[in-house]
Amino acid sequence: MTPSKDSPRPAGAGRAPGVEPARRAGRPTTAVLTPAGITAAAIRLIEVQGAEFSMTALGRALGVAPSALYNHVAGRDGLLTLVQDELMGHVDVSGFGTSHVVVALRRWAESYRQVFARHEAMVPIIAVLPVTGSPRTVDMYELVAEHLIAAGFPAADVMPTIVAFESLVFGSAMDTNAPETIFDTSGHPRPTPSFDEARRAQAATGTPSADASFDWGLERLLAGVEAGLPSEA
Amino acid sequence: MTPSKDSPRPAGAGRAPGVEPARRAGRPTTAVLTPAGITAAAIRLIEVQGAEFSMTALGRALGVAPSALYNHVAGRDGLLTLVQDELMGHVDVSGFGTSHVVVALRRWAESYRQVFARHEAMVPIIAVLPVTGSPRTVDMYELVAEHLIAAGFPAADVMPTIVAFESLVFGSAMDTNAPETIFDTSGHPRPTPSFDEARRAQAATGTPSADASFDWGLERLLAGVEAGLPSEA
Repeated sequence: MTPSKDSPRPAGAGRAPGVEPARRAGRPTTAVLTPAGITAAAIRLIEVQGAEFSMTALGRALGVAPSALYNHVAGRDGLLTLVQDELMGHVDVSGFGTSHVVVALRRWAESYRQVFARHEAMVPIIAVLPVTGSPRTVDMYELVAEHLIAAGFPAADVMPTIVAFESLVFGSAMDTNAPETIFDTSGHPRPTPSFDEARRAQAATGTPSADASFDWGLERLLAGVEAGLPSEA
Repeated sequence: MTPSKDSPRPAGAGRAPGVEPARRAGRPTTAVLTPAGITAAAIRLIEVQGAEFSMTALGRALGVAPSALYNHVAGRDGLLTLVQDELMGHVDVSGFGTSHVVVALRRWAESYRQVFARHEAMVPIIAVLPVTGSPRTVDMYELVAEHLIAAGFPAADVMPTIVAFESLVFGSAMDTNAPETIFDTSGHPRPTPSFDEARRAQAATGTPSADASFDWGLERLLAGVEAGLPSEA
């Protein structure tokens, strides 16, 4: 994917991405860093290098000293929270309040997986990253919880349900990036007739394995939500 | 956890773990590296440092030069396959053939999650690591596929089902290691009454959130398997 897909404001030409021109026309050579620009640069770096990037590497990518970054973001941890907030802003929650809650959950989970399949290096980080400081993440949880509770879903099951969907989403996002050869059994010392039959039968459906697997799990979780809703009078 | 939990052969006292004594009594000062010993040392290193370890760091932990490791394992990638094989050997597949397939799947998924919750740094690696060269992984897939097909489960759904269970398992293994404060909404600019109610109601059940979330998802996937089995005559 191209970075611009996730960048609502494409970086202007002729300067380092993430560095915005100073607003005052009288100071043409000065560039200013912004948290949004630094976040966008961090996301691009993570796509290439993975989430183990250093602030030094990020500063290098932006053409500034690492100390300049610390004037705008609260260190690497604070920056990861900004990355989380940016990515969560791309998850589609528009179904909540406009569609049946089960339809809204499907759209939410599908787009959630798409966002993190494009940013798989962030998966192990976001999976354990506190939501504190990420307003879009908290708003997302509040919205999903609100509509599950309003639909009559048992309140005690709301968090387990949300987290179970997220676990499937995160696991599937990683699986989406697995190599085609992941199930290659060459060299195995024993025959694998059932595994071979299962792979052949799945391949014959024409649906990519990662999509079929996510769909299979998602439909079962959605059926579980449906079963937890009060039957309509 | 202690490393010995996953090491069937505890390292002997008085020498570096992973280095086994030479078998010939006449050469007391010589130690020999083995693939199993190197694998056990790699697992211990991953528990402490994460999966980004280098062969140099592993050699240092074993008190040998990196080149000595390459005489026994096919580089870092080959070593990760050995780690995968070792960890998969701890997943409980004993239910297949002795219990109903749904009961066997539950035991398999629960132990699978436990193993990777203890080795979460391996999750993003194993999730995309080819099974080639890991006989225990391939045998596990063959066994699960064999019993699903024998129970009358549609062959084309076997791989999607296995992978959906694994996605939930991997996502839940990461969630199990999330900090207690992951859902702390302090500083959020808006009230979150539904999210608060959902968290309170879940906490009141007394079940740890990560366990409740995994169980919720697992029961729904198991219900999906049950629904795919032919009804008994």
